[in-house]
Amino acid sequence: MLLGRVVGTLVASRKETTLEGLKFLVLKQLDIEGKETGGYRVAADAVGAGLGEVVLYATGSAARQTKYTHQRPCDGVIMAIVDLLEVDGDVKYDKSREG
Amino acid sequence: MLLGRVVGTLVASRKETTLEGLKFLVLKQLDIEGKETGGYRVAADAVGAGLGEVVLYATGSAARQTKYTHQRPCDGVIMAIVDLLEVDGDVKYDKSREG
Amino acid sequence: MLLGRVVGTLVASRKETTLEGLKFLVLKQLDIEGKETGGYRVAADAVGAGLGEVVLYATGSAARQTKYTHQRPCDGVIMAIVDLLEVDGDVKYDKSREG
Amino acid sequence: MLLGRVVGTLVASRKETTLEGLKFLVLKQLDIEGKETGGYRVAADAVGAGLGEVVLYATGSAARQTKYTHQRPCDGVIMAIVDLLEVDGDVKYDKSREG
Amino acid sequence: MLLGRVVGTLVASRKETTLEGLKFLVLKQLDIEGKETGGYRVAADAVGAGLGEVVLYATGSAARQTKYTHQRPCDGVIMAIVDLLEVDGDVKYDKSREG
Repeated sequence: MLLGRVVGTLVASRKETTLEGLKFLVLKQLDIEGKETGGYRVAADAVGAGLGEVVLYATGSAARQTKYTHQRPCDGVIMAIVDLLEVDGDVKYDKSREG
Repeated sequence: MLLGRVVGTLVASRKETTLEGLKFLVLKQLDIEGKETGGYRVAADAVGAGLGEVVLYATGSAARQTKYTHQRPCDGVIMAIVDLLEVDGDVKYDKSREG
Repeated sequence: MLLGRVVGTLVASRKETTLEGLKFLVLKQLDIEGKETGGYRVAADAVGAGLGEVVLYATGSAARQTKYTHQRPCDGVIMAIVDLLEVDGDVKYDKSREG
Repeated sequence: MLLGRVVGTLVASRKETTLEGLKFLVLKQLDIEGKETGGYRVAADAVGAGLGEVVLYATGSAARQTKYTHQRPCDGVIMAIVDLLEVDGDVKYDKSREG
Repeated sequence: MLLGRVVGTLVASRKETTLEGLKFLVLKQLDIEGKETGGYRVAADAVGAGLGEVVLYATGSAARQTKYTHQRPCDGVIMAIVDLLEVDGDVKYDKSREG
């Protein structure tokens, strides 16, 4: 899994029929320090993530292992909202301290 | 999923038999600002996308989760046509404003 | 899928037993202009491609969705021979015009 | 599989329900010399790895082939703790010599 | 598939239980000229490859399509030992001429 920050939304009225009802969020990829890498991903939301939140997302076939995405043409899913990220003994991200 | 713009078509008369009837479109990959990244992908079309449209495409095994691509040797599928892309509060792409 | 040009062959007498009879071809990856990118791939041949031909190849689990590669340890397959590639209104490759 | 060093942990109270009980560790990717590459991965822990340990991790659908990760939206798993890494005749890493 | 040269071994006494008996080899990735690219991979050995040999390896779910790796958390497998690699009419590698 990789870290991302939810930065946007995407509307698509014409889509594969099985995708009806699935919410797509736009993520900026984050590195291990919580900084943006320049990459992005559009992912289905399985946890009710909100704009600005730091999340964990899975790609590939893993993205279909939720009730929302099962057997749908989806290759990215947000599967957790990050509360605390600690690396090398330092807190790199603490959701409770976000403004 | 990633964003792409449909820029071309590909004709292949000799192909794996199960691929008969599948339409392949050529996509230029887009970044989160809607700008071309230099990368591309050839993808099967599951939604009737047209030249110039901005689409969402899935890769890997996800690409076989449509009735068009099921059990076919296909690793990329266009599964949605983008109407609106909003990032960091700005509209990066609005299909209704395209010329 | 991505574009490649068949540039070589590979002989392997000692291999996983299920691979017997499978032909491996060496591909140079092509970009959307039909130019070499510097990357390569060794892929199983499902369509009888010949040296010099421009082909479309699939990777990952898609590579096992042919009768030749089913349930074999193979992560790349040539699934179509390209006749015509048209991008942004220009013909980038036309098999009938090749020398 | 690739090599990583366990450098941190991640807490996520809101997550896909099937992920309950799964422990996520933060890995810095290592190259073949045992040096950090700058990349990272968040992976589920299937072997009880500890901070500072050098591990082997698998990605993609392989990450779901353990009893801990079966049918869960997880695309990375630590599946072995490295004791000894020998490359080109040199010992690049020896767990028993670590401080 | 990609080309690699077997350059080392890895010992891991603590590992996912289903991995018992599987041999892991360290590969340096090779380009189409047979030169090292700087990348590496740790792969399970399905063909009895030896140090110094040039091999073909598969990644992703393909890596589990051998009797050794079936249903195991393994994302890379050596599935063939290369005897001869011919590219653009030149022999790039010939096992019988190796010292």
